Amino acid sequence: MEPRTVSILGVGLLGGSIGLAIKRRLNSCRVIGYGHKSATLDSALRSGAIDEAYDDPGRAVRGADLVVLSTPVGVFGPILRAIAPFVSDAMVTDVGSTKRSVVKLAEEILPRPGRFVGSHPMAGSEKRGVEFARADLCDNALCMLTPTDRTDPAALSAVEAFWKILGMHTLRLSPADHDSRVAQISHLPHALAAIVVQSAAPDSLELAGKGFLDMTRIAGGDGALWRDILIDNRDNMQACLAQITSELQKFAALLAPEKGEELRQFLDRAAQRRGGMGSKEMRNSAV
Amino acid sequence: MEPRTVSILGVGLLGGSIGLAIKRRLNSCRVIGYGHKSATLDSALRSGAIDEAYDDPGRAVRGADLVVLSTPVGVFGPILRAIAPFVSDAMVTDVGSTKRSVVKLAEEILPRPGRFVGSHPMAGSEKRGVEFARADLCDNALCMLTPTDRTDPAALSAVEAFWKILGMHTLRLSPADHDSRVAQISHLPHALAAIVVQSAAPDSLELAGKGFLDMTRIAGGDGALWRDILIDNRDNMQACLAQITSELQKFAALLAPEKGEELRQFLDRAAQRRGGMGSKEMRNSAV
Repeated sequence: MEPRTVSILGVGLLGGSIGLAIKRRLNSCRVIGYGHKSATLDSALRSGAIDEAYDDPGRAVRGADLVVLSTPVGVFGPILRAIAPFVSDAMVTDVGSTKRSVVKLAEEILPRPGRFVGSHPMAGSEKRGVEFARADLCDNALCMLTPTDRTDPAALSAVEAFWKILGMHTLRLSPADHDSRVAQISHLPHALAAIVVQSAAPDSLELAGKGFLDMTRIAGGDGALWRDILIDNRDNMQACLAQITSELQKFAALLAPEKGEELRQFLDRAAQRRGGMGSKEMRNSAV
Repeated sequence: MEPRTVSILGVGLLGGSIGLAIKRRLNSCRVIGYGHKSATLDSALRSGAIDEAYDDPGRAVRGADLVVLSTPVGVFGPILRAIAPFVSDAMVTDVGSTKRSVVKLAEEILPRPGRFVGSHPMAGSEKRGVEFARADLCDNALCMLTPTDRTDPAALSAVEAFWKILGMHTLRLSPADHDSRVAQISHLPHALAAIVVQSAAPDSLELAGKGFLDMTRIAGGDGALWRDILIDNRDNMQACLAQITSELQKFAALLAPEKGEELRQFLDRAAQRRGGMGSKEMRNSAV
């Protein structure tokens, strides 16, 4: 059941952390890494996240029984085409933050679509690069799996077991359901954090305290990575932005002394809901 | 120069923390506390945040050379009226999150308006109550001071020195400038965090990771407290909400493949700006 050779395509923060977690939890497993920069591969080798390094994705998947796509979503197409002739009957999964387009692409390109299982481990940070990789990055985080009618149940179970071995808990949902729900709790918050940072005057930013820093931390994420995610999930994002615009109007109407009680109720309901979610410290490493 | 007797009106999280900080930094200083609940006063006495407790604000300010208003902004009016006959030539300051209305009220009500110095220590948390008070809550945080033409320069210097003794750094600005800038970096983010929490579907919230938890932490704050702040600063809030609504529309227009480069630039500019502000861990206890 457990993979003996895993190929990680893209050894950045998350790919590198997956490699380190494999070495810790599955210590007889061989880890092959692909990256397009030799400095990144050297760094991944040095940190022990991978055992072998290649700058050719096709070469990096040979002999693997599990392939994990960990590059930005925007280059999944070329990567999938490059590995298609070589994956044989290996299981293929990914760590992309959007799932409809990724699953569709993988099922179109890969020779055995049933062996592809879409995954979204909610682990990472606003930092980038294998130098920030940590063996415990995935510990206790949620990994969503997005099988389709075509997914081989054995591959689904094996990929799910793999993420659990790495310390994650898992949830199965459809690609469409994933994209819609993740827009609300990840993609929209990212956009709003970026907008809040850009909207404040520079002399106001100087006054910012911890609340502002926490609220906008995610806006520190890489622009190209988030561009791909937000454009890929743009239908859900448009729905979220329209909803927030409407909520902002309703909220503005409550900013009057005679609406004080209604405003307090709204704020207290939000406080209660947020309080019920617990603190960040209760979760180890979800993004 | 240093106060020998400080009266703290309202011994919650911030008032209690100020008391603890005084006891640590000015150990010969006597601290008198006012609260309307005996349980709070008992708790403040037990924790050592105050030396004497009264449930009558007028009684609590007798003999004080510095009075610190630490109740919610919404009850400053009655409190100021209650202490006015007894403050004599004591300096009076406050910890309110809005400054125009507070300063106006204090200058109208107090017998010696020049002895009032508006303050806004950016310290606190989403928690409430003296049981969360900490002697280091104010360490390295920013305290804004909002003098007017009427403010006695000696009182301003003494109040500023007081906050510095407690471990804060200070900035002087006008009440209007304060309210406008703080709307952008504190009041608007609070409103957005609450709206984001309330807009997400319950089954989406279950998927939330650290990014969402950080982004929405401030929404856990007390509704009544924030209602007072947001309604008091409603003109600036309306301007911020209008600006954000306009920014959301511009952002929505960038969610198209052909706008990808523009979107990336926007996100990278935000990331760079946010990155330049450093991490929360670099600041000790600003809110």
